[in-house]
Amino acid sequence: MADPVSPVSAPSGPSGSPGLSTAGPAPLDDALPQHVERVLAGYLDRRRTEVLGIDPVVAAAADALAGFVLGGGKRLRPTFAWWGWRGAGGDPADPHAQGVLSAIAALELIQACALVHDDLMDASSTRRGRPTVHVEFARMHAANGWSGPPARFGAAVAILVGDLAQVWADDMFHAAALPEGAHTRAAEPWRAMRTEVLSGQYLDVLAQASGDTAESTALTIDRFKTAAYTVERPLHLGAAIAGADPRVVAAYRRYGADIGVAFQLRDDLLGVFGDPRVTGKPAGDDLREGKRTLLVAAALQRAEQRGDRAAADVVLSALGDPDLDAASLERARSALSELGAVQSVEQRIAALTGAALDALDSAPVAEPGRSHLFELAERATRRAW
Amino acid sequence: MADPVSPVSAPSGPSGSPGLSTAGPAPLDDALPQHVERVLAGYLDRRRTEVLGIDPVVAAAADALAGFVLGGGKRLRPTFAWWGWRGAGGDPADPHAQGVLSAIAALELIQACALVHDDLMDASSTRRGRPTVHVEFARMHAANGWSGPPARFGAAVAILVGDLAQVWADDMFHAAALPEGAHTRAAEPWRAMRTEVLSGQYLDVLAQASGDTAESTALTIDRFKTAAYTVERPLHLGAAIAGADPRVVAAYRRYGADIGVAFQLRDDLLGVFGDPRVTGKPAGDDLREGKRTLLVAAALQRAEQRGDRAAADVVLSALGDPDLDAASLERARSALSELGAVQSVEQRIAALTGAALDALDSAPVAEPGRSHLFELAERATRRAW
Repeated sequence: MADPVSPVSAPSGPSGSPGLSTAGPAPLDDALPQHVERVLAGYLDRRRTEVLGIDPVVAAAADALAGFVLGGGKRLRPTFAWWGWRGAGGDPADPHAQGVLSAIAALELIQACALVHDDLMDASSTRRGRPTVHVEFARMHAANGWSGPPARFGAAVAILVGDLAQVWADDMFHAAALPEGAHTRAAEPWRAMRTEVLSGQYLDVLAQASGDTAESTALTIDRFKTAAYTVERPLHLGAAIAGADPRVVAAYRRYGADIGVAFQLRDDLLGVFGDPRVTGKPAGDDLREGKRTLLVAAALQRAEQRGDRAAADVVLSALGDPDLDAASLERARSALSELGAVQSVEQRIAALTGAALDALDSAPVAEPGRSHLFELAERATRRAW
Repeated sequence: MADPVSPVSAPSGPSGSPGLSTAGPAPLDDALPQHVERVLAGYLDRRRTEVLGIDPVVAAAADALAGFVLGGGKRLRPTFAWWGWRGAGGDPADPHAQGVLSAIAALELIQACALVHDDLMDASSTRRGRPTVHVEFARMHAANGWSGPPARFGAAVAILVGDLAQVWADDMFHAAALPEGAHTRAAEPWRAMRTEVLSGQYLDVLAQASGDTAESTALTIDRFKTAAYTVERPLHLGAAIAGADPRVVAAYRRYGADIGVAFQLRDDLLGVFGDPRVTGKPAGDDLREGKRTLLVAAALQRAEQRGDRAAADVVLSALGDPDLDAASLERARSALSELGAVQSVEQRIAALTGAALDALDSAPVAEPGRSHLFELAERATRRAW
């Protein structure tokens, strides 16, 4: 299935309608993920040359990072940043457009740090169908018969590869050839975003450990671990680079926070009810992994309000059970539906999406950014994958 | 014992000689570590307020970082950066001096990331007499009876606290109020330093695992894991901020690479032969921890050249033995001495220090930076702690 939020299959906005303009389609608008990958590949290649000069063996760490970054991903954060920039008046014909592309491509390196470190913290063994970084290096250790535990070596390398991604993200962002004043304007979203995502990750780790099942906790985590750094701050970043009208920044932040949370809530529903043939993940994998989502929090709260201990137990016993079988998964799904948690989450997605589109609609956002952001909102919150 | 490389007890250079000038001593020059701690405390407090706005419980992560950063450390990196800036003409009476202080204080946050992540990778339980971050949070987990293994929770939090330190280091550096053009000039050392230290850490992890005992590997690790980011790049950073003469930058880099390696070699000798009452660490701790230092590499190479398998075995059996007793430690020390490894390392320290001071001497470095850098070189390479 095509990636519905990828601009490769994006709607034909004014700039994407061949034949309407004698200038033809704007290449950056029409093939943004490929352009993001091109600048990332070029940047990572230059940094690889740099570490080769330190010691040739360090290239393995740079290669692991490049393999991770270029091996997959929807380029969602640069996509929101790009359309945020375009909606705030950014012009792909501007000589600084390549610089803007570099600055927003750096978001993929922040994401690489978050995922490499997250995979280690969660002890996940695969990502995008490939071994995670800590697993890859543990295998290298074992294959070479080196001393010490392979897992400890793999963990150490994953920590360092994630750190390298974080450091290179900052370098790439700061080195991007932006227009005069843009780096100063962009400092706020760049600064806030990185602290927000780490804070969200910390809240998540803490909530999982302490068994915090409050709906408000789940929403705070969705807000900072996902929404702020996937949608809100990337849009804010694009707007700041363009020197946006404050009304546009405010609308983007409202839209970003709401669509970002709605995106996560859709992900939560798919993590329990999604079709494995479409999601690419085993059915009910989020339950098996014990994710404390808003869906689970809403179910537990409803069970408590009704005094339905049995329904709560069905959900809780599925949660974090690595051997969850089809029958138990089905019972948990039924409990989530019957308690009204699914409907509650669907209603919240709809309300968030509505509020986000209202905010976008009432702000002076320029075409074709405006159309693309409307379309991205729909796709991010209605997708079946 | 006083910290010999701390400017608190620094030599009386022209600016540090009360009575010689009617203006009195320059406060920044004379109490640099305290000023560094002041700006760090202020910065960390502002960021704490920011994360409180995300969720009050995130303050625990910010507090762990602040406790780590403010709880100790010799402020060595900002000290070299400061005297590098002074030696390149930086003036503490300049209105930007506080901005320079902020930019170089950010080096302590890079160091915090490196140490917090290093302690986790090495599974160290104490640092500066306190529990390491991963141990502190594992204990919090156990004390609260939370779910899952406490060690895994502690590791996750240490990864995130280290990441936060890295991100805040960049933010603090980029937000510092430097003179026009200084950030652009300082981009090269800032960029190179962070990649060099991570590369050095990767090389170290790889060498420990693969049992690489080559002298050249030990020297490369010393060069990038210690020298580049402790002395060379901090000096380069200070020089770049000041807009230094290229001859000064070249001399600083030579001096920094050499003094930085010599500093590490002195540390290696103290890690095996140091007096615990002075070093504050158990006698022979580096052997117990299995550190593959140049001292060990030199001993093993000499044993091989002589065909002295017995001497090599004495060293290798001590290396990484957590239960190393006094008698075995004494045998290992004797072997290191008798093989000529100690003398070889001492000669190298002397040669590196000589080359460093020659480089410094021949460059147009301004007082009082020049005198302080001479003094710092002596103290860093001759210290007994």
